[in-house]
Amino acid sequence: MEKVDVKGVKLFAPASIANISCGFDVLGLCLENIGDLMEIRRSEKAGIHITSIKGQDLPLEAEKNVAGVAGLAMLEAYNPQLGFEIRIEKNIKPGSGIGSSAASAAGTVAGINYLLGNPFTNKELIPFAMEGERLACGSAHADNVAPALLGGFTLVRDTNPLDICALPTPLELVATVIHPKIEVKTADARAVLKKRVTLEKAISQWGNVGALVSSLYEEDYDLLSRSLVDGIVEPARSILIPYFKELKAACKEGGALGSGISGSGPSVFALSRGMSTANKVAQAMQSVLEETNIPFDIHVSPVKKTGVSFIEDLLT
Amino acid sequence: MEKVDVKGVKLFAPASIANISCGFDVLGLCLENIGDLMEIRRSEKAGIHITSIKGQDLPLEAEKNVAGVAGLAMLEAYNPQLGFEIRIEKNIKPGSGIGSSAASAAGTVAGINYLLGNPFTNKELIPFAMEGERLACGSAHADNVAPALLGGFTLVRDTNPLDICALPTPLELVATVIHPKIEVKTADARAVLKKRVTLEKAISQWGNVGALVSSLYEEDYDLLSRSLVDGIVEPARSILIPYFKELKAACKEGGALGSGISGSGPSVFALSRGMSTANKVAQAMQSVLEETNIPFDIHVSPVKKTGVSFIEDLLT
Repeated sequence: MEKVDVKGVKLFAPASIANISCGFDVLGLCLENIGDLMEIRRSEKAGIHITSIKGQDLPLEAEKNVAGVAGLAMLEAYNPQLGFEIRIEKNIKPGSGIGSSAASAAGTVAGINYLLGNPFTNKELIPFAMEGERLACGSAHADNVAPALLGGFTLVRDTNPLDICALPTPLELVATVIHPKIEVKTADARAVLKKRVTLEKAISQWGNVGALVSSLYEEDYDLLSRSLVDGIVEPARSILIPYFKELKAACKEGGALGSGISGSGPSVFALSRGMSTANKVAQAMQSVLEETNIPFDIHVSPVKKTGVSFIEDLLT
Repeated sequence: MEKVDVKGVKLFAPASIANISCGFDVLGLCLENIGDLMEIRRSEKAGIHITSIKGQDLPLEAEKNVAGVAGLAMLEAYNPQLGFEIRIEKNIKPGSGIGSSAASAAGTVAGINYLLGNPFTNKELIPFAMEGERLACGSAHADNVAPALLGGFTLVRDTNPLDICALPTPLELVATVIHPKIEVKTADARAVLKKRVTLEKAISQWGNVGALVSSLYEEDYDLLSRSLVDGIVEPARSILIPYFKELKAACKEGGALGSGISGSGPSVFALSRGMSTANKVAQAMQSVLEETNIPFDIHVSPVKKTGVSFIEDLLT
């Protein structure tokens, strides 16, 4: 039912890790304590109106902003007469490779859906959020918006028509993410990929994807660890990330189950069993970049079991 | 404990379907009611002695027979002083693409293991059975011996070192297999494959493998159906199988969840939900080949939940 007494909602729009080593373009996971804060309010004026963005210098015009574009796509499908106002406290840095645009797009459509009394399921919201991704990187991919909306691990089986599986999340899994503050353009990260791969490497990759999915259902951390391998994308893309090899070695030393490039980089992620190991891995990764002049952010976060979370109803 | 009073064992060595559309070289499943009957008996004479093969013209010399080679590999590892005699009633035709050699190899090592009191787990038996596969087709692949030994669906994550996942089996799943009696050499089936594939097709394939694994855990027959797609191997190999397109169309008409080439062919398999649909699919496939002069066998079989099964202890 529509929440008519409620003026708006404050929500947490989570960051996410796409690809997860072997699962290029299909796998993603949602992060618990990295994300944007957003306020979505009803507006008398039809359309999407972004009134404030804190923390980042991003366009307020709805048509040029991923949140705006996602919201407009949703209103177009539901009721173009409606209007919403959006305020964003942007904690995820655009271009960091942990789903900054996906968080804004997912938060917007989830928030509007909440205020409208949930006419759409979370899965049904994904295509709207994907329109935000189309603006951000030229293609309407789902590997970050799916985990941001559904939580946990997700698999994009197909994008046309869209077919997404929500996968289970082993409870003790914790991610460590280091963001070296250098720019890797998504376009460049795409360009370095070879258009063809050997059948042999492709077979290894789909063996690992299948095993990784099984490991999530079985809560088999050892199998998960063995599956976190990428013989195709990582070797090509890692050349864009300074000290990648050293960071990976540090993750291993710290006891991580595996590590790789988060999305199209430059962030590097590791998955560990338990918070204490994830913290050790953070220490080890940090030591690598501290010996350089590259500024960085570092995060330790459990996998978030649900997507966008609603913090409070706004009554004014 | 070793079964010292027991002279031998009679067992059922199941056929299997490898690849299963999207899972080329990694997925396999075990069949319930297609398979060889074997008798394995202790022998005073060290080594493996194949004393009878009914139903097919295959070499009795242990070194030239997949069952012999698999058994010898096992004795080599366990105790080369021991001796076993093998009789085979070969119901699975070699070269049919439903794991004929794998059944003989798996039956042999499972039978010897049984008589020795199970010193090895079923997973540990796989490498010995793979030696039989090396003799049969030049490479020690595991995608048929794994399901023949473990039952259900299996995934070969890696062969070096060997890493195999046993996957769950949706209860209502039934396979239909038609074997057009034409010869497709495994070497030719390998040769028609392209060495490289586009990254785009590879991504689709691993999306489908991941989704298929998820569908088995979720017992989601619709998702399973959508995942039974192969954009890489089937287009290349199907040219070796006469009326493949018509057979696939028949499977669809009959209501199958999906269909494809079994192993390296020429058998074509379909998976259906429930026996009645699987029988309809069999009818539809049969109609296609009945209009030609190609002789064929047709089988309808549930997925076997366990591997090799032991029928009776032999006391003489």
